[in-house]
Amino acid sequence: MEEEKEINYSERVKEFFKDNRVELYDKLKIIHRNGQVIKGVLLPRPDIGDPDVLILKLDNGYNIGIHLDNIVSVKVLGHLEAAPLVKIRKTYKVRKKSLVYFLGTGGTIASRIDYKTGAVYPFFTAEEIYSMFPELEDIAFIKAESLFSIFSEDMKPSYWSIIAEKVADIFKKEEPKGVVIAHGTDTMGFTAAAMAFALRRLPGPVILVGAQRSSDRPSTDAAFNVIAATITALDAPFGESVVVMHGSTSDSYCYVHRGVKVRKCHTSRRDAFRSINDIPLARIDYPNSFILLNERYLARSKEGIILENKFDPKVFLLKFYPGMPGEYLDLLIDKGVHGIVLEGTGLGHVSENLLKPLKRAYDEKIPVVMTSQCIWGRINMNVYRRGRELLKVGVISGEDMVPETALVKLSWLLGKNLDYKEIREAIHANIVNEINPRSEHRSYPSL
Amino acid sequence: MEEEKEINYSERVKEFFKDNRVELYDKLKIIHRNGQVIKGVLLPRPDIGDPDVLILKLDNGYNIGIHLDNIVSVKVLGHLEAAPLVKIRKTYKVRKKSLVYFLGTGGTIASRIDYKTGAVYPFFTAEEIYSMFPELEDIAFIKAESLFSIFSEDMKPSYWSIIAEKVADIFKKEEPKGVVIAHGTDTMGFTAAAMAFALRRLPGPVILVGAQRSSDRPSTDAAFNVIAATITALDAPFGESVVVMHGSTSDSYCYVHRGVKVRKCHTSRRDAFRSINDIPLARIDYPNSFILLNERYLARSKEGIILENKFDPKVFLLKFYPGMPGEYLDLLIDKGVHGIVLEGTGLGHVSENLLKPLKRAYDEKIPVVMTSQCIWGRINMNVYRRGRELLKVGVISGEDMVPETALVKLSWLLGKNLDYKEIREAIHANIVNEINPRSEHRSYPSL
Repeated sequence: MEEEKEINYSERVKEFFKDNRVELYDKLKIIHRNGQVIKGVLLPRPDIGDPDVLILKLDNGYNIGIHLDNIVSVKVLGHLEAAPLVKIRKTYKVRKKSLVYFLGTGGTIASRIDYKTGAVYPFFTAEEIYSMFPELEDIAFIKAESLFSIFSEDMKPSYWSIIAEKVADIFKKEEPKGVVIAHGTDTMGFTAAAMAFALRRLPGPVILVGAQRSSDRPSTDAAFNVIAATITALDAPFGESVVVMHGSTSDSYCYVHRGVKVRKCHTSRRDAFRSINDIPLARIDYPNSFILLNERYLARSKEGIILENKFDPKVFLLKFYPGMPGEYLDLLIDKGVHGIVLEGTGLGHVSENLLKPLKRAYDEKIPVVMTSQCIWGRINMNVYRRGRELLKVGVISGEDMVPETALVKLSWLLGKNLDYKEIREAIHANIVNEINPRSEHRSYPSL
Repeated sequence: MEEEKEINYSERVKEFFKDNRVELYDKLKIIHRNGQVIKGVLLPRPDIGDPDVLILKLDNGYNIGIHLDNIVSVKVLGHLEAAPLVKIRKTYKVRKKSLVYFLGTGGTIASRIDYKTGAVYPFFTAEEIYSMFPELEDIAFIKAESLFSIFSEDMKPSYWSIIAEKVADIFKKEEPKGVVIAHGTDTMGFTAAAMAFALRRLPGPVILVGAQRSSDRPSTDAAFNVIAATITALDAPFGESVVVMHGSTSDSYCYVHRGVKVRKCHTSRRDAFRSINDIPLARIDYPNSFILLNERYLARSKEGIILENKFDPKVFLLKFYPGMPGEYLDLLIDKGVHGIVLEGTGLGHVSENLLKPLKRAYDEKIPVVMTSQCIWGRINMNVYRRGRELLKVGVISGEDMVPETALVKLSWLLGKNLDYKEIREAIHANIVNEINPRSEHRSYPSL
């Protein structure tokens, strides 16, 4: 364990602490100059940042900074004792339950922070998982191993390949009912899409699961997410790559989202993940009822997994904006990009000045796939003249795929060493339900 | 008027037409090989596209293409006569109504298509507006002029400057209750944000309005949108830049969205626009009830407009994705970009390999603003280590701004020739309600 950090706030702040009898780890009630009342636990100053800014941990697990000059008054409400670490039991009952295999890649869900020291404790043995989520003992026989321990923003195509290969290996050797992958939420949607393409004819679901709030906070969503993921592994009729996360802001239900149709749509809410242009595959009502919502799924297969886990990393996602110079597209081509996913406007448009470099991409047989920055809806380049001009310079419709899924699909197709014509056809083809033939409006935001 | 186009489908298609007694502009019922029944009017083949693909105009105004090989059967239901053009009256009653000024920039709302000829008729005189939307005669005295006639995907920062200057001029010389800008929907959100920054202390609202379906289709949303925009010009207590578009898929109500907090979220729905991290300013219930929804607004001002309409076009929007090479960020810096808006993951993260080029941007005093590809929620780079690392290399939090608004704001700040430190401060400052101090969850997508 690391040593407790000393007070390294500014001298002004230290004086303020002294005057108000404030100590580190005190629970404080602060009146902000803007009238807000803020309650939280005073933390040591991080290594980075203004020494006049107090760092408070709020009850929801987030830290905020308050500048000394903005504090009208402070009251000490109590003091935080060291959070008791969960006791790891060395034995657990191995019931005659079905096997669910847990694979760790990192992220909030697979770590525990001691706020007194700032130390992060990754956990990922079966014993630790049972100890953190004791309900699992009655549900499944768990085996677990940690593959990576990275922030999900550092995930990349070569890691997708490693995870997919590992999952295929686990299904072959261990024959679990499903594989649960603990993953940071930031890029979980991309990885879920990658697993969908890389692993087909799955004997059971591959379930990405994460947490928006860390496992040792009272407000954590980790426990129910992990339990719902395990239930999905056991009860789902499908063998697809999915994301299991909270469906609402309370612990009332989780959704099972199709990996190729899901997106993180909120920076902090527990129900950050949303199915886009599709309905979720299933819902898990607290604590353990599995309810199938979507009849269109790929069933568990007994024919043996197809592993095609190569991804071409030289695919670029380019979001269009008004005034974007065509020059940047030329730069990408000069640099030897193998494929481009455009995030255009509306039904699939970009400005006129991009037509020339897009024509160049076409001539050099670099596939360009059009998606929409609207997020919801479907590309249709037949409606307006600009769309038809884009079709003419070879831009391929991404149909109703979100840009993130189109990126993963194009990277995967290029990894298969297909030629330009085959890639064109495969983009339009529905391989793993990444294209929904019907327009599905039910997840669209209201108000 | 253009000449009627001849049949320029393939010989195979022509033969098929002959066998089935099909003529151009016939209303057809086609059974598709996939079982779908498609009804629509057969159009001439466009200049681009496969000559074996029949183009049908559906009742909703969209065109679709069906390959001859996918047609199981065809039945002629009727024949489309030339759509009668709306008769333009040369006189209209100038009631003693308040003045609302209409400014045309292009887009679906300001054009009428003759499907028999493919010819597009832009319209934008007051006479034409009254003739298309006769209800307006009882509501307002209208003056109108056309500024541009462009696809909104061709809109760019230099055009924002021209529109803003024109609007300021109109308010000064004509003293209307409000200015309504007809605009294509694709980049309407960007232009609305640009007007918000460029025009402050407005005596009345600046209202962007558009249509998702063209004005001469039965399913058009244009009429109610234009009427709701006019009502807003007359009745709104605020002097802000706003977007007025359908709030639902029927003609039941429109929303008035704050220009800096709105986004096109669907490629084709009539209620494509959504307020993000804020509630709409108002609702117009059909046909003409103005209901204020949000008490936080900038009131109409009598102090004289502030026009600051310069935008720096050298600002780049960069959406992060797993595996993005740091090299592209270096290329942008090499090319002399003046500012960068990052669309990071989650609370505001990018991969480790981008830290070095971001440090370089910081050293070269190029402001970098972090926003989230989640769309909803707020940036918080204090929660995780990567966030703190990004703060350390000078990345500026975009708070709860959508990436599009952050881009416009940074472009505007750079246009004001502020120095790096002033820009940093101004990004955090709330200038025209582009930052919502409260977290507003009501527009978040359900299911």
